Amino acid sequence: MGRVAGPGKADLGILFDPTSVAIVGASEDPGKLGSHVMRSLLNGGYKGALYPVNPKRGEVMGMPSYPSLSKIPGEVDLCVMVLPAERILGQIRSCISKGVKGVVLATSGFKEVDDPRGEALQAEVGKMATEAGIPIVGPNTFGLVNRHADLNASFTPEFGLLKKGGVSLVSQSGGMCHLVAFLSMRSGIGFSKIVGLGNRCNMDFGDLIRYLHGDPATKVIALYMEGIDDPRPMMEEARRCNGSKPVIAYKVGSSTVGDSASRSHTGSMAGDHLAYRGAFRQAGILAVEGTEELLDAAKALAMCPLPQGPGVAVVTGQAGPAMAACDVCEREGLRVVRFTSETQRKIYALLPPFSLRDNPVDMGPAWYNMAALKGVIEAAIEDNGVHSVLLLMTYASANAGLAEGLVCMLGDERWQKPVVACMTAPPGVWDGEIERLEGMGALVNLPTPERAARAAAALWKARSLMASPVPVRTMGP
Amino acid sequence: MGRVAGPGKADLGILFDPTSVAIVGASEDPGKLGSHVMRSLLNGGYKGALYPVNPKRGEVMGMPSYPSLSKIPGEVDLCVMVLPAERILGQIRSCISKGVKGVVLATSGFKEVDDPRGEALQAEVGKMATEAGIPIVGPNTFGLVNRHADLNASFTPEFGLLKKGGVSLVSQSGGMCHLVAFLSMRSGIGFSKIVGLGNRCNMDFGDLIRYLHGDPATKVIALYMEGIDDPRPMMEEARRCNGSKPVIAYKVGSSTVGDSASRSHTGSMAGDHLAYRGAFRQAGILAVEGTEELLDAAKALAMCPLPQGPGVAVVTGQAGPAMAACDVCEREGLRVVRFTSETQRKIYALLPPFSLRDNPVDMGPAWYNMAALKGVIEAAIEDNGVHSVLLLMTYASANAGLAEGLVCMLGDERWQKPVVACMTAPPGVWDGEIERLEGMGALVNLPTPERAARAAAALWKARSLMASPVPVRTMGP
Repeated sequence: MGRVAGPGKADLGILFDPTSVAIVGASEDPGKLGSHVMRSLLNGGYKGALYPVNPKRGEVMGMPSYPSLSKIPGEVDLCVMVLPAERILGQIRSCISKGVKGVVLATSGFKEVDDPRGEALQAEVGKMATEAGIPIVGPNTFGLVNRHADLNASFTPEFGLLKKGGVSLVSQSGGMCHLVAFLSMRSGIGFSKIVGLGNRCNMDFGDLIRYLHGDPATKVIALYMEGIDDPRPMMEEARRCNGSKPVIAYKVGSSTVGDSASRSHTGSMAGDHLAYRGAFRQAGILAVEGTEELLDAAKALAMCPLPQGPGVAVVTGQAGPAMAACDVCEREGLRVVRFTSETQRKIYALLPPFSLRDNPVDMGPAWYNMAALKGVIEAAIEDNGVHSVLLLMTYASANAGLAEGLVCMLGDERWQKPVVACMTAPPGVWDGEIERLEGMGALVNLPTPERAARAAAALWKARSLMASPVPVRTMGP
Repeated sequence: MGRVAGPGKADLGILFDPTSVAIVGASEDPGKLGSHVMRSLLNGGYKGALYPVNPKRGEVMGMPSYPSLSKIPGEVDLCVMVLPAERILGQIRSCISKGVKGVVLATSGFKEVDDPRGEALQAEVGKMATEAGIPIVGPNTFGLVNRHADLNASFTPEFGLLKKGGVSLVSQSGGMCHLVAFLSMRSGIGFSKIVGLGNRCNMDFGDLIRYLHGDPATKVIALYMEGIDDPRPMMEEARRCNGSKPVIAYKVGSSTVGDSASRSHTGSMAGDHLAYRGAFRQAGILAVEGTEELLDAAKALAMCPLPQGPGVAVVTGQAGPAMAACDVCEREGLRVVRFTSETQRKIYALLPPFSLRDNPVDMGPAWYNMAALKGVIEAAIEDNGVHSVLLLMTYASANAGLAEGLVCMLGDERWQKPVVACMTAPPGVWDGEIERLEGMGALVNLPTPERAARAAAALWKARSLMASPVPVRTMGP
């Protein structure tokens, strides 16, 4: 069960930015994965050369098809394989002859099956590729995605619909990549890279973290883990990110049944949950406890400057959501601070008496007043005790113009401290404005006050985990 | 600060099913709440008589307007008031003369403001209405909604877009009612009644719980609470529901700042959070810790039969989501049981070898096989150790037809045990099929595996809190 040595210093960039991709097992039959991979690459807008390989066809989906890898006229950077397991070893040999630089091995039937031959085959594939310096994603993976290169080397074309952004996800489960993607389509999270590690025959979390650490398009590294044989390389690579790029991890397998499922799923023990938690903390990895928490934290970390302390100002249109958020703030280590008298004076001047003008600040009857809202947020941000702002605004018929007003009012302005918002409205009503506010870098929006508070807390936790002070940077998508 | 005595045995049904509604302060000016209330009632499809009252106008939004309540020719069951606070006392007198049976008092400027005159005014209004036997919702409320009567007596027309169903929400915060409504529009939760209690001048949680307990359209009572002066009547009414109708509560105000916000917000102390938790348990109220948890539990309780034990079977298309769900199951008191050998035999016969066929059951390569999926679910449901089923299916291009297949396969069949699902797909892809599956009563769908597991756990917790065994009922929307 020992981990096969990784591909060493192999340039993983070629996996994500290939100039050409061969699809071994390309097909038009919708019952075959090869057809879905073809559609992913064709519909995704990939600009490089595509070479379908299928000895039985002259063309596949309107593209000339090649009988074998060796017959492809040009160079092949990335090879996606969707053939039965028993044919993979021969194809890896062909990849080596052809000088292929990276492989996505979507095929299953390796270490995850209940048959020792699967494990033996995987070991042989891994050894051969490693000796040739070829990194393999998989086997038993859905594939990989690089949104910034319009590359969808997976069997699910819908990954091409994801927004582009700064989150990169490395996952031990393809199912979780799909879940995360579909949730993200509803909440505006932008992705850089997504990789399903599958059975990790010669690449593991550590290799990907090392690569993503150096990848300028990746603002935050998000991990979904079930358990790995030797977590040390991963922890070391994560520790190297410390101080420059946040790493967050959702580790499942705390339950006894989950543990046995993991063993079958990707051929590894889920291991001791508590030991992982301790190791994460030492490596500066922010541990989260659910899919949505992973996504919310990743979104905030990719889009916000890091706060320099736990002080939070809560600016709200309604008292109820603010109370819910304050509970979470306090539970998660943020402090709803008392404003300085200077800040208090500024806010008192902006709001009518009888509204709640301490922290939380209830805009109450002044929620239609954009200048007052902007003034309150600015006053809070200028307060030295405030390190981040929670902005909670729930739609009502009487404040329908609030989101548009905020867009107009803010212009290109960017705040030096994170503004984590929960602006909620009926579907379709504020969606465009919220997208614009996020695109402008004015704020990051979460679906509930509690999740906004938890994301704000994640920003401060991530900052606390970092060893050295980080330079203040402005917000940006 | 003592609680004004409630309206006693007044029939609260008249608030939710009035044959006529007067709007005192009706307006066409979009800057006035009176215009939003008019739109709510007109657009909501309310079938009863509407009487706008505005002495300055002959008509409002195409309807004849009356100079005062007394000039209205017919009887007035419900009166919605959106006038400034100083004019309310006179209008309550008019209501009494006219024989109005219930009032929604949207006006603010009462106990919630930092001026003793507000509190005094509220006490007077409450006393007068109580002596006349008139229940008042408010003051300082957004209003009330009865989806089954197409009645939207609130200042937010969008409540009329909510799906009809079995959840009734009683909330101390209008902001939270809005938040809950907008979240629900994205997740298919169906409502019966929604009430913003506001300052509770002569009606409190206890009165509403008593009414909803006897309301056949309400399957589950959901409470959002900040804190009340005397929780005993509420706890007593909730205890009376025990064994017949689930009551769930989200209580905020655990933080010290939240506590002071609550005092200002609805004029009451948030009180001791832990004391509330204990009282909830004694009263058989299921306590939840967030807006989404409240909604998820309410949705499941409104749509599913209650499980008779903690045993859960996990049927999944992908191992990762199942592991995440199993962690939550175990943490929340469910047991991922070992199947009987009989069940195991049935499942082995349905699935290919090499897939994970114990609990969790990974459909793996058989995810396109609807007969196998149905057979596995049925085998699990027939297992005496299984009390509920978690069904986790994530879309991939290769299983796109799964949701439709499930709809066709199930027909009108209903299972005797709850099936809590997490079927996820890109927006728009499976939405219609999931709605049909929920409408058929086949399952209840939640957005993540963790939330599905937590909702399944809430079903069992709600069952555990009930004093006596409940009859098995089939699922239904």
